[in-house]
Amino acid sequence: MEDILNLRYALDTFYFLVSGALVMWMAAGFAMLEAGLVRAKNTTEILTKNIGLFAIACVMYMLCGYNIMYPADGNGIFPALDFSFMFGGDNDPAEVLAQNPEEWYDGSYYSGMSDFFFQVVFVATAMSIVSGAVAERMKLWSFFLFSVVLTGFIYPLQGYWKWGGGFLDGLGFNDFAGSGVVHLCGATAALAGVLLLGARKGKYGKNGEITPIPGANLPLATLGTFILWLGWFGFNGGSELVLSNVEEANAVAAVFVNTNMAAAGGVIAALITARLLFGKADLTMALNGALAGLVAITAEPLAPTPILATIVGVVGGIIVVFSIVALDKVKIDDPVGAISVHGTVGMWGLIAVVISNEDATLTAQLIGLVTIFGFVFVSSLIVWSILKTTMGIRVSDEEEYEGVDIAECGMEAYPEFTSSKV
Amino acid sequence: MEDILNLRYALDTFYFLVSGALVMWMAAGFAMLEAGLVRAKNTTEILTKNIGLFAIACVMYMLCGYNIMYPADGNGIFPALDFSFMFGGDNDPAEVLAQNPEEWYDGSYYSGMSDFFFQVVFVATAMSIVSGAVAERMKLWSFFLFSVVLTGFIYPLQGYWKWGGGFLDGLGFNDFAGSGVVHLCGATAALAGVLLLGARKGKYGKNGEITPIPGANLPLATLGTFILWLGWFGFNGGSELVLSNVEEANAVAAVFVNTNMAAAGGVIAALITARLLFGKADLTMALNGALAGLVAITAEPLAPTPILATIVGVVGGIIVVFSIVALDKVKIDDPVGAISVHGTVGMWGLIAVVISNEDATLTAQLIGLVTIFGFVFVSSLIVWSILKTTMGIRVSDEEEYEGVDIAECGMEAYPEFTSSKV
Amino acid sequence: MEDILNLRYALDTFYFLVSGALVMWMAAGFAMLEAGLVRAKNTTEILTKNIGLFAIACVMYMLCGYNIMYPADGNGIFPALDFSFMFGGDNDPAEVLAQNPEEWYDGSYYSGMSDFFFQVVFVATAMSIVSGAVAERMKLWSFFLFSVVLTGFIYPLQGYWKWGGGFLDGLGFNDFAGSGVVHLCGATAALAGVLLLGARKGKYGKNGEITPIPGANLPLATLGTFILWLGWFGFNGGSELVLSNVEEANAVAAVFVNTNMAAAGGVIAALITARLLFGKADLTMALNGALAGLVAITAEPLAPTPILATIVGVVGGIIVVFSIVALDKVKIDDPVGAISVHGTVGMWGLIAVVISNEDATLTAQLIGLVTIFGFVFVSSLIVWSILKTTMGIRVSDEEEYEGVDIAECGMEAYPEFTSSKV
Repeated sequence: MEDILNLRYALDTFYFLVSGALVMWMAAGFAMLEAGLVRAKNTTEILTKNIGLFAIACVMYMLCGYNIMYPADGNGIFPALDFSFMFGGDNDPAEVLAQNPEEWYDGSYYSGMSDFFFQVVFVATAMSIVSGAVAERMKLWSFFLFSVVLTGFIYPLQGYWKWGGGFLDGLGFNDFAGSGVVHLCGATAALAGVLLLGARKGKYGKNGEITPIPGANLPLATLGTFILWLGWFGFNGGSELVLSNVEEANAVAAVFVNTNMAAAGGVIAALITARLLFGKADLTMALNGALAGLVAITAEPLAPTPILATIVGVVGGIIVVFSIVALDKVKIDDPVGAISVHGTVGMWGLIAVVISNEDATLTAQLIGLVTIFGFVFVSSLIVWSILKTTMGIRVSDEEEYEGVDIAECGMEAYPEFTSSKV
Repeated sequence: MEDILNLRYALDTFYFLVSGALVMWMAAGFAMLEAGLVRAKNTTEILTKNIGLFAIACVMYMLCGYNIMYPADGNGIFPALDFSFMFGGDNDPAEVLAQNPEEWYDGSYYSGMSDFFFQVVFVATAMSIVSGAVAERMKLWSFFLFSVVLTGFIYPLQGYWKWGGGFLDGLGFNDFAGSGVVHLCGATAALAGVLLLGARKGKYGKNGEITPIPGANLPLATLGTFILWLGWFGFNGGSELVLSNVEEANAVAAVFVNTNMAAAGGVIAALITARLLFGKADLTMALNGALAGLVAITAEPLAPTPILATIVGVVGGIIVVFSIVALDKVKIDDPVGAISVHGTVGMWGLIAVVISNEDATLTAQLIGLVTIFGFVFVSSLIVWSILKTTMGIRVSDEEEYEGVDIAECGMEAYPEFTSSKV
Repeated sequence: MEDILNLRYALDTFYFLVSGALVMWMAAGFAMLEAGLVRAKNTTEILTKNIGLFAIACVMYMLCGYNIMYPADGNGIFPALDFSFMFGGDNDPAEVLAQNPEEWYDGSYYSGMSDFFFQVVFVATAMSIVSGAVAERMKLWSFFLFSVVLTGFIYPLQGYWKWGGGFLDGLGFNDFAGSGVVHLCGATAALAGVLLLGARKGKYGKNGEITPIPGANLPLATLGTFILWLGWFGFNGGSELVLSNVEEANAVAAVFVNTNMAAAGGVIAALITARLLFGKADLTMALNGALAGLVAITAEPLAPTPILATIVGVVGGIIVVFSIVALDKVKIDDPVGAISVHGTVGMWGLIAVVISNEDATLTAQLIGLVTIFGFVFVSSLIVWSILKTTMGIRVSDEEEYEGVDIAECGMEAYPEFTSSKV
């Protein structure tokens, strides 16, 4: 029996580590997506933000976020911080092997370190969403300071309410892998920042005209989307948390299939919607459609049949196009469409749970949605406001015109390719 | 015993899902490879085709392709379609755990959903091959319609003949992971399209001169090749289908090693061949050499020793250079060399099986090769012809000169980097 | 019991194969990193070097390197070469299953082929380090010849001293995943080459001024860094060699977490150090900081707590900035900073082992460090010297000015993006 327990533990840990590595890879996806969708003169800075925020997220989540979100004693919103994790330590093999296998899944069935690894890459994902929306005009170091607060405190607190066993979990709110906890959270923090930051110079004219500002490198943006698609198999697939028996293995496989089908549905829907609206096959809408499908299925990738998962993605792909158009109409300037992809469609994902999951109620889903949006919006707005009034959050007009790359990083991303500023 | 059955099932399912995720990643590889090898003005469109075809392949294979290729009742070329899969359902845990472990490998030893996931990314691979060969001049929406037919019907039908238990399987035709079923199939469909489509303007002069049209972004093409190389470990490695005992684990490991060695052999052979022919170390030939090595070993990556696998790859790397030169001589214009890499070398791969696999016969291999080529060529030619006579398959001369990106997608891939059309 | 042995073997083999695939992926990371940090006119050649050296490393390691590093009879520095591996063969299932499970970990507990696969991608990593440092001025085919010698002989010999059971292992030298055996080895070979090769034209002025030569494509360099970060989970995580019980699974998970934290620490430290020194958030330093953190933790990613791992990475991130500045001062021209990242920080990693691992002694670490550096430096210097006096190692001044892409490969990497030479 000990042999079986050893093997189960090893397999479930490995499944967690592989899933976590795929989610870590999403950091590269966001970096490429955002670098491809901004102008050349703002590319170095967005890359710096992306690698910097990932590092900050890892350190802050280790120092306090993980303990806030998953308190060791299981109590309270502000738990007594338990730093045992930071100083090493994992499940005691003797205790693991002494468990009754029948009660296995109530016990410690995989490495605690692997759990931290899987969780830490999630908080980085939430933060990556923000960087795209505030691109091309936000100060680098203000952004990093906001990253410290979001990854160390805001994200873990609302994450605790659902995944740490807090009140949203008690209310029956369903969010399998984080349409709300991760994607809506990141998008909401981004929205608060964008509102305080204002639009890029030249984006919206005095008479309501909207000037498209095309991204400098669409192959990069496409690569980023494919990376995110791949990484999402870890994001959703790993969120089943257990693999090692027939039922769980079937569940993980269903999550993989549904995740893939929703993305596929999102691509097709966004392509056709954009074609009908704009008369062309809009690549950036197709990319956002893929991501919208993925965000939409993230709240419930297990319960739907593959064909229902496709439909959830299709709806996400349609919504995202209209949301991007609508945000532009109200002059909320989001260079990469992150608020629409992760926010608007994140909400759709939370609501769509009730279609396939019998245990979900619309009330609980809406309470969760409103709670996450409300808390993250208000707390982010406070933090952004403090940053704005102290060190400032926006670069000067001249720096924006010259490009933030030179101002903030002192180097161009493509020094040989661009002869004039756009 | 139940514990063992649970663990086996979970491990084999996980192995399948990881392999499938690697194959899904090949979609990004094809997208980057093709985007790197076309001109800047046709890049957005090839990216749109690549993400669009992947989505179409997933949906069509779910709707009908999977059931045609692996009919639930095991009968006939046109099985009564069984939509049970589409509406969910997987192996019943009770039935799985009641199996006699000795007869395990005749039963359901991994999740059916994971099988679908692994198979669906294969059909996308076949379709990805087509997009490169018809690049820079084919209409976007005609291409998508062809994708619907190939991924929903043509690919599954010929796939059924071998992997679904059809007549090619009965004849002793060997094709481990699809040198024929996937790569030759894709290349043949591409050839039919290219013949109807004609060459790009300016490629072939009146007096037989050939104008090289260099790719706009070779780092992207190199990245695409490395992605494909990585993904191939899932493509070939997953095709062993089982992992969970010593013999099978050894087999999967051998497949990994042989796949890697064939690619390495292909690179070296193509580099030296190109150096001897052209006097330079031709990067695009090195990349095609890697892919040629991979395609060549795909029909039998298990039986050869590592050194024989290297040789199979070396021969593939030599063949691909001569095939690319030869196709140009007969004015078959394939911007990325896909027909040579996947078609010519796919044939070599099918034939090379007889060198290492004692169970294979040259006759059976040739019958399989001719069957796949003949069926896919004729059926594709019919579909392309219908598209040509109805909606047309080629953009206008002016659109081709301006670049299909503006005409089809309304946006440039690199708006800041290119000041004039090439 | 046989069932357990089968499953253990399969799981440990699969863990090895997945880890190896991640390390293979690092080849793409080095290719993108280096392609992003050189000028556009030298990009095709660095890509050709990167894919070529990977192929050469695989073939040479199969032909002799693996047998030198892990001699079948366990004796001597120059073992009687055993070609059994090359001709196939793996562990006999009957022998594996007849083992006493208690003595399992002394026996053959995973596929020998999977071991080769994991080892072969390590030698390619070592060689990839060299290509960056000698970029923009070294002859392509001389580089390939050096690759043959390093991957076939120099690397395996010093690898044997530690990992093959040689005298460094006997002395108690600790190098978990290769801060010394892989990274210092590669950097030392690069240093020897750079010293014989000299700096790029225009880099160092007569009056001591240093002209920065910016990389042409920073998104590529960032992508390369993320790829390496991901691949490092296989590099360090796979080096635990066993996964299949609670203790080992915990160990692998700890290695994942520590590897990630060290990289994060490296990014933050390098960003802040560069900001203090140069006044800007230097992206290339942030990237090198990530890699420095990874190199630093590689010699001992298991013993530290996550917070200590972060500190090891922080120190690495600080060291790398000063090392890059210092090497420039003494006119050692390393376009990508590879000698600093893998050499200087590799040394720090070897020394840092004594902080967390009680079994390590500073004496043994220093002996290992000096041995690897001394042997690789002298042997590489001899090989580079022979190449220099026979076929030459440096391109002509005119070729360097025009770019090695045209001279060596006959094609530009970005033919449409660059109108004039930089």
